[in-house]
Amino acid sequence: MREIREVIEGRAARLSAGDVRGHLAYSAPEVMQYSLAPPLGEKVDTTDPTQVEQWLATFEAPPRREVTQLEITVDGDVAFATSIDSLSATPKGTTDAFTLWYRVTLGLRRIDGRWLVVHEHESVPFQMDGSFAAAIDLEP
Amino acid sequence: MREIREVIEGRAARLSAGDVRGHLAYSAPEVMQYSLAPPLGEKVDTTDPTQVEQWLATFEAPPRREVTQLEITVDGDVAFATSIDSLSATPKGTTDAFTLWYRVTLGLRRIDGRWLVVHEHESVPFQMDGSFAAAIDLEP
Repeated sequence: MREIREVIEGRAARLSAGDVRGHLAYSAPEVMQYSLAPPLGEKVDTTDPTQVEQWLATFEAPPRREVTQLEITVDGDVAFATSIDSLSATPKGTTDAFTLWYRVTLGLRRIDGRWLVVHEHESVPFQMDGSFAAAIDLEP
Repeated sequence: MREIREVIEGRAARLSAGDVRGHLAYSAPEVMQYSLAPPLGEKVDTTDPTQVEQWLATFEAPPRREVTQLEITVDGDVAFATSIDSLSATPKGTTDAFTLWYRVTLGLRRIDGRWLVVHEHESVPFQMDGSFAAAIDLEP
């Protein structure tokens, strides 16, 4: 349980430090990713940092990641974790700092003695008022 | 693995049949739910069918639920499952049939010998083009 918590907090801290390879080292080589952005789902090769590096380059500085309400369920070599996270950043070339709160579910496996993320599901809900607007202004 | 698959397909089938109590019987009494609609997250009491019944009543008939690309990871008494699902329905008082595709991550625990859903994360991504529109028109 403590090891899994360290994985989850460690990868958030590495991202906040702009250490993409360090961040990705907490993931299995292939991750089933349900991301904030389309598509619905894709298997991501985490040995290639290009995509995350390009995403980081869209901000003035590495985003600050916060993990709250973390709950971990584990047995043997399989675990899942739920949390309400935030990402605080300023888009490149602007002074429009924002904080986005979203839900995260991680699936983890212990492989060769190390806990690794094999599935990541990040999302915000959407308004059911007919606008189909992503609810990007929610707070926990 | 087979038992977990039966839970996931069984609860979808019960919902499609309008059997709310049968659908909820596959869940633990309390589920950490990250739903398509706000809030970000809530602990839901699945012994009370009212909320699901009220939601079903907004459609002409019970929605058709389909589970595709199901992948289950299990060890001991803990599992998580990922899938790309669809919901097909017609809002009450209209002829506007729709099909919504979305991502589902379930967390399950085996409690007293029965696999039960303890966590449900359902979502669509949103467009990163500045519109913040929920991507409700994606297909797998």
